[in-house]
Amino acid sequence: MVEQLSPAEREDALEGLPEWDHDDGRDSISRSFTFDDFSQAFAFMTQVALLAEKADHHPEWSNVWNRVDILLTTHDAGGLSERDIEMAQAIDALVD
Amino acid sequence: MVEQLSPAEREDALEGLPEWDHDDGRDSISRSFTFDDFSQAFAFMTQVALLAEKADHHPEWSNVWNRVDILLTTHDAGGLSERDIEMAQAIDALVD
Repeated sequence: MVEQLSPAEREDALEGLPEWDHDDGRDSISRSFTFDDFSQAFAFMTQVALLAEKADHHPEWSNVWNRVDILLTTHDAGGLSERDIEMAQAIDALVD
Repeated sequence: MVEQLSPAEREDALEGLPEWDHDDGRDSISRSFTFDDFSQAFAFMTQVALLAEKADHHPEWSNVWNRVDILLTTHDAGGLSERDIEMAQAIDALVD
């Protein structure tokens, strides 16, 4: 069972993810990514899909041409867990 | 320049796409697809991405685990065009 982060753990984690926005209502984090075109955007999505499948932790995400919006939360935990933080770090490592 | 379908053309086209819902406000069509798991959902998305890139006509779409929601419209035409109908038919052919 994955546990929701405590307020202190969440605050610490979010400091390390400055590009991600925290939604208080859902206790989720999200980030938008913009690429040169659809081909690059979908190549990124494929990389994220492989990360997600490997971690068995999947994003809620959408794409419109060169833009990819990713939202992470842990349904089983009722909000953000360590799994979301690790996934966000892995996604950041793809682009930053 | 791609032209928006006339009301008569739209009606005819939508009769051939019974699984797609038409949104009057945006003059778009959308369909939800459900698969066994994320891996199958993303395999489908990859097929759609290749269709979209080949046609240079890209969907607005989202994915949550085993579900893929696809919306088609033609921004340049201000609504549905023949390109959306052809894309919807090609997507249907992947799954039906």
